Amino acid sequence: MSGTGNHLDFYRHRRVLVTGGLGFIGSNLARVLVDLGAHVTIVDSLLEDCGGRRGNVAEIAANISLHIADVGQAGVMDDLVRGRDVIFNLAGQVSHIDSMRQPYRDLEVNCRNQLVLLEACRQHNPDVKVVFAGTRQVYGRSQTLPVDESHLVRPTDVNGINKVAGEYYHLVYNDAFKVRGCSLRLSNVYGPRQLVRHDRQGFIGWFIRLAVEGKTIQIYGDGSQMRDLVYVDDVADAFLRAGATDVCNGEVYNVGGTEPITHRDLTALLIEIAGSGRVEYVEWPPAKKAIDIGSFYVTSEKFAGATGWRPTVTLRDGLERTVAFYRRHLPDFLLDEIRSAV
Amino acid sequence: MSGTGNHLDFYRHRRVLVTGGLGFIGSNLARVLVDLGAHVTIVDSLLEDCGGRRGNVAEIAANISLHIADVGQAGVMDDLVRGRDVIFNLAGQVSHIDSMRQPYRDLEVNCRNQLVLLEACRQHNPDVKVVFAGTRQVYGRSQTLPVDESHLVRPTDVNGINKVAGEYYHLVYNDAFKVRGCSLRLSNVYGPRQLVRHDRQGFIGWFIRLAVEGKTIQIYGDGSQMRDLVYVDDVADAFLRAGATDVCNGEVYNVGGTEPITHRDLTALLIEIAGSGRVEYVEWPPAKKAIDIGSFYVTSEKFAGATGWRPTVTLRDGLERTVAFYRRHLPDFLLDEIRSAV
Repeated sequence: MSGTGNHLDFYRHRRVLVTGGLGFIGSNLARVLVDLGAHVTIVDSLLEDCGGRRGNVAEIAANISLHIADVGQAGVMDDLVRGRDVIFNLAGQVSHIDSMRQPYRDLEVNCRNQLVLLEACRQHNPDVKVVFAGTRQVYGRSQTLPVDESHLVRPTDVNGINKVAGEYYHLVYNDAFKVRGCSLRLSNVYGPRQLVRHDRQGFIGWFIRLAVEGKTIQIYGDGSQMRDLVYVDDVADAFLRAGATDVCNGEVYNVGGTEPITHRDLTALLIEIAGSGRVEYVEWPPAKKAIDIGSFYVTSEKFAGATGWRPTVTLRDGLERTVAFYRRHLPDFLLDEIRSAV
Repeated sequence: MSGTGNHLDFYRHRRVLVTGGLGFIGSNLARVLVDLGAHVTIVDSLLEDCGGRRGNVAEIAANISLHIADVGQAGVMDDLVRGRDVIFNLAGQVSHIDSMRQPYRDLEVNCRNQLVLLEACRQHNPDVKVVFAGTRQVYGRSQTLPVDESHLVRPTDVNGINKVAGEYYHLVYNDAFKVRGCSLRLSNVYGPRQLVRHDRQGFIGWFIRLAVEGKTIQIYGDGSQMRDLVYVDDVADAFLRAGATDVCNGEVYNVGGTEPITHRDLTALLIEIAGSGRVEYVEWPPAKKAIDIGSFYVTSEKFAGATGWRPTVTLRDGLERTVAFYRRHLPDFLLDEIRSAV
């Protein structure tokens, strides 16, 4: 985790709720919060294909309060938001592809459930601070690079639309109802505990799994499209900073990496680090091409200026840690795969 | 209606569906379509407080096919979209204030129902063209004036959020599924058949009613905030132009007036034209102030460039026609009020 200072001290004895806390980013954030002495409550519905796993919090299970429930259940949320100082709101459906197949489900999870959470706060805990996990997806294709927060929002899929609606709700509840909130538009996050069971939640986790398994990584087109990647511990630190200051209220911030890289170079680096896997270049599948966004990377200068945050884990270092994690734990994640299939 | 030419000839014998066709803009548009020789079908749920009235199509009732149904009923919409050449999609909940009281209802009407319509098109009539009634509300407060389409989207209320999600769906279905669509971000539309039963659907209809009734028009603050107004016949012509050309597909366009005016000057002009009514300046009610957006007016140059559209009805002329309409028909609208109350 990057940096030290007041934003870490802030969390000692704080009562914190993490929605989607069994998922990739939520569980990494919860681990840090436990270390910082926060009282951590997690709510997660273990929605299929969203990356939630009980195993993600196995090592902190004794130190957290865990509720398996849907954020869309108003009665449950009314109780869960009471008395919290900060809510890290990471519950959501994150697959672009699934949202185009099942738009109503995506609407429920990413729009309606956000309203339920915010209404619960408005009615039962208006003094809470909510930090929402937004996504760079809301920008769609980049018109200028790097993308900053003045870039137009033009999602290319249903998931991006519903995610930006969920984000806007937080801003309106901040402005009109004084339920303090802000949104971090996350770029391509990677690291331990990421869903690697299928390839429908972003390419990076899937590529890492294939490399670790010594399999073939397929790259669509020539691999020249660029992305910025940010390690999950740096993202957890971004949430902690946003939650600890009122400077961020009512604002959206990009949170991304510092070193944009092509798919081609990224894959080469990954295979080198893993010492296994190989690459194959293939034609774009039409369904993926239809919602592809070309090269895309963000600048996080606005957030750096507001909070002092900087990513501190280099891509090489982050990939080494992640590969090491999956070398050890991939069997557990594959066991989940078998469980899910039966 | 402004202009003549191909975009009018286009509609002869076309099969056109107007959602929300019993409402203010929808019913005015339907009247023009009937005149142009189109086969017009209207679907409207007569949702309370949304402005739909059977009386709005009384004079064309024999020339249209009318379905009282909710756009959210997939089975109904699957049938209704089949065989249509153009769909003018005006069904929606338009009250800012109501959306802050009943956010879930607004979500149903403005997000979910739009998905139902678009899914029906995708499955049963992918060749149709859909023109969506968007709103300038999606911009929130203006950062530059006049507002053009490169202005950031930052809604100030739940209705604005759900409306922009509904709009984005149309663009994604255009881009990814080739269901041709575009959105007209309407400014302050006024004219005959506007809802004047309460003041929760924009100020202009309510002001006109008060003037016609010889009552007091309350202006919040000093009345210096500016707006652009556009007459409903000009808006109907904008829809016809957008529906008749593929130039607009996948695009959003402002559709507004040419003469921004202060609330103060507008009210004075209205009272002069009506020869009745008076004005009173009062403090902002907190609930309204919280979602007020200050001065706001748009430029419609992008749409003018694409389609040749220009507003042709001056503010004075439009107000005269509207006042004359309500002098004659206000009793019918007030009868609706009584019916609604019992």
